[in-house]
Amino acid sequence: MTHIVVLSGGLDSTSALAHTLTSKPPAEVAAVSFDYGQRHRRELDAAAAVAAYHGISHRVLDMTGLLSGSALLGASEVPEGHYAEDNMAATVVQGRNLLFAAAAIATARPGDSLVVGVHAGDHPIYADCRPGFWFHLNEVAAAYGVEVLAPFVELTKAQVIATGSGAGAPLSLTWSCYQGGELHCGRCGTCVERAEAFDLAGVVDPTTYQDSEFWRTAVAAGR
Amino acid sequence: MTHIVVLSGGLDSTSALAHTLTSKPPAEVAAVSFDYGQRHRRELDAAAAVAAYHGISHRVLDMTGLLSGSALLGASEVPEGHYAEDNMAATVVQGRNLLFAAAAIATARPGDSLVVGVHAGDHPIYADCRPGFWFHLNEVAAAYGVEVLAPFVELTKAQVIATGSGAGAPLSLTWSCYQGGELHCGRCGTCVERAEAFDLAGVVDPTTYQDSEFWRTAVAAGR
Repeated sequence: MTHIVVLSGGLDSTSALAHTLTSKPPAEVAAVSFDYGQRHRRELDAAAAVAAYHGISHRVLDMTGLLSGSALLGASEVPEGHYAEDNMAATVVQGRNLLFAAAAIATARPGDSLVVGVHAGDHPIYADCRPGFWFHLNEVAAAYGVEVLAPFVELTKAQVIATGSGAGAPLSLTWSCYQGGELHCGRCGTCVERAEAFDLAGVVDPTTYQDSEFWRTAVAAGR
Repeated sequence: MTHIVVLSGGLDSTSALAHTLTSKPPAEVAAVSFDYGQRHRRELDAAAAVAAYHGISHRVLDMTGLLSGSALLGASEVPEGHYAEDNMAATVVQGRNLLFAAAAIATARPGDSLVVGVHAGDHPIYADCRPGFWFHLNEVAAAYGVEVLAPFVELTKAQVIATGSGAGAPLSLTWSCYQGGELHCGRCGTCVERAEAFDLAGVVDPTTYQDSEFWRTAVAAGR
């Protein structure tokens, strides 16, 4: 009986992993990540670092060629500014969460669980982060004897960070930036969302941003 | 608005494709097949031949390495005899229909439909062929603006053959045998099911089997 945590290397999945480890020993928890040709490949290194930190097994599945057409895959520019619906529509990847969950379920044995770190802040932008999506996917996965858990689906990102921080998640190892540079850019939608969420959670942000001030302006403009 | 038909090259999906083409022009119908390292790779040639027969576009997605552990992938011997539950359990592939549907949905645009040829004869063996599975997957796919259609989900295989034959499906081009030889072996579970279903449908079976008599004995023994 293994809890398979979908680990992108970002704050949400890293928090979901730490949250899972608070109730399960490391031997019963495994992480799976996806190489889909994403522009921000730095997140795969972050996922590996997080898994190594916890001493759990980590598998990277090759999904190259099965997804297309998003700014995250180089089809267009990654939007800057606040993490709001209009702004982030270019980062939607058709079929992404379904395909990732399906590939993870294909690695699972009957009795295993799949854990995903989706949260309420993603609902307006990504339909495949909403509670109904995960409810029905859990019913689908039952055909394979697999339970799908989305423990943060009703939490805000700030609440996710507070939960992850409380569970001992190595948040300093995580990666959010969609630009894929050496440092977090501080200007893209996910960087702005990241900095704002740490601030709202009252947790010290361990991130070094190339532009560490932009987020306050973007949040003020986005509200 | 494209109807994307999952085409394995077998009787069910070939019938589903012909059934779809009776209500849609070829330009609005496309086929997608999956290379998952299956032992019976001959079915991919059959799928290509069926798509070419109808003059529709056909895409083969590479799913190699994402599925494992079934007799269809060489993990054990393909069972002979009647297509019954105990006998065919070795041919279950964990996550298969979910992964295939997910990959097809990832190629779809909002407004497109996904068509699958699953039928009632597969329900006892394959949980991912049952109506509930496809009902919930349709709800999941709604997140991407895609409708999932399983027109044969309540039909027997004989009824599928009758429907496909009536819709002009090129059933002589299809491939069922799990052994992957030059001819249909006539002895594996799907060969027996194929021969029996043509007989029950009252449609002339165009197949040349290596062993053309075995199915009658196997059906008699399986009942």
